[in-house]
Amino acid sequence: MDLTKRQQQIVEIVKADGPITGEHIADRLDLTRATLRPDLAILTMAGFLDARPRVGYFYTGKTASELLSEKIKKYKVHEFQQVPVAVKESVSVYDAISTMFLEDVGTLFVVDDHACLTGVLSRKDLLRTSMGHQDLTSIPVHIIMTRMPNITVCRRDDLLIDAAHNLISKQIDGLPVVKDTERGLEVVGRITKTTMTKLLVELTTDENI
Amino acid sequence: MDLTKRQQQIVEIVKADGPITGEHIADRLDLTRATLRPDLAILTMAGFLDARPRVGYFYTGKTASELLSEKIKKYKVHEFQQVPVAVKESVSVYDAISTMFLEDVGTLFVVDDHACLTGVLSRKDLLRTSMGHQDLTSIPVHIIMTRMPNITVCRRDDLLIDAAHNLISKQIDGLPVVKDTERGLEVVGRITKTTMTKLLVELTTDENI
Repeated sequence: MDLTKRQQQIVEIVKADGPITGEHIADRLDLTRATLRPDLAILTMAGFLDARPRVGYFYTGKTASELLSEKIKKYKVHEFQQVPVAVKESVSVYDAISTMFLEDVGTLFVVDDHACLTGVLSRKDLLRTSMGHQDLTSIPVHIIMTRMPNITVCRRDDLLIDAAHNLISKQIDGLPVVKDTERGLEVVGRITKTTMTKLLVELTTDENI
Repeated sequence: MDLTKRQQQIVEIVKADGPITGEHIADRLDLTRATLRPDLAILTMAGFLDARPRVGYFYTGKTASELLSEKIKKYKVHEFQQVPVAVKESVSVYDAISTMFLEDVGTLFVVDDHACLTGVLSRKDLLRTSMGHQDLTSIPVHIIMTRMPNITVCRRDDLLIDAAHNLISKQIDGLPVVKDTERGLEVVGRITKTTMTKLLVELTTDENI
């Protein structure tokens, strides 16, 4: 949304001196209140300004792009999480790779007997091990997995965009979605870069998202 | 953006009978042209309606979400592509895996002597091969790579969202960005699910994107 010159002037005035009444904004611009009414209505509806009775207009601090990004910022992890795929700590690297292919996932979660998270295996972890000229059937995954507390997790009610931030900043492909229990972190879901790519596609195709 | 009841009525009228002048819309609602002016300005600025002199208002057919998705739909591949990492066809699987780790990428492109695309190697391809109890230093990548014409490519001026669609529908992690030359497809860039995740993050943090 492009603002007119006058609308930009109004935003600047409110930014600097808000809260400020419509009358005062009109005075500053040497215009009548009636002339300004459409502009103030537009700026308020578009979310740049907010108005409170007997207080006046104040700046919401939002640019057009910020307003746009708010849509993305609302999404929660549980709205997009996929089913997690987990293996036990004693499983061999060979079997873990097989599971990865069978389930067609890029990240496996390693769990204890109570289904609680103890490790994460990425394709990268498995590939590194498989370069080592070792017998993959004889190495248990707990030897090579990334362990707690070095695992980045997220929870159902976290913001999806925070999960996206973590995927980028930690340079990982997937995050476990966990639930806090007395025995540890139960793995209930999976968030990956595929989740994010799908969201981007859905944002441009599904108007109900 | 939430429309008021009156704004919704205006949209309905223009949808049904547009192009229609402001005067006629005002008549239909039993209001003066002056009363409607702010609403018409808002609806036009927000992109719901468009106006042409001497023709009147017409409906753009766009919902709020459609307008929002237009922002994403504008991006071109070249604005976001990353540097490609390529290996020759004769390189061993072992060396390809090493390159993948050194360059920290998830997809390698295989090129001929003219730097033209002949194949793609994903982490999945390399992992599958490394399960095979073979000597990875003696297998050249051209044996295991995905070959043309089974490679999905994109070009600099393609829409980024079309690349995202392809990543999802073909279930792949990365696409080569290619340039058509007399000798074949020169690899000039790389688009991945990481690109898409970064875009999502940028959409919520960078107002200049």
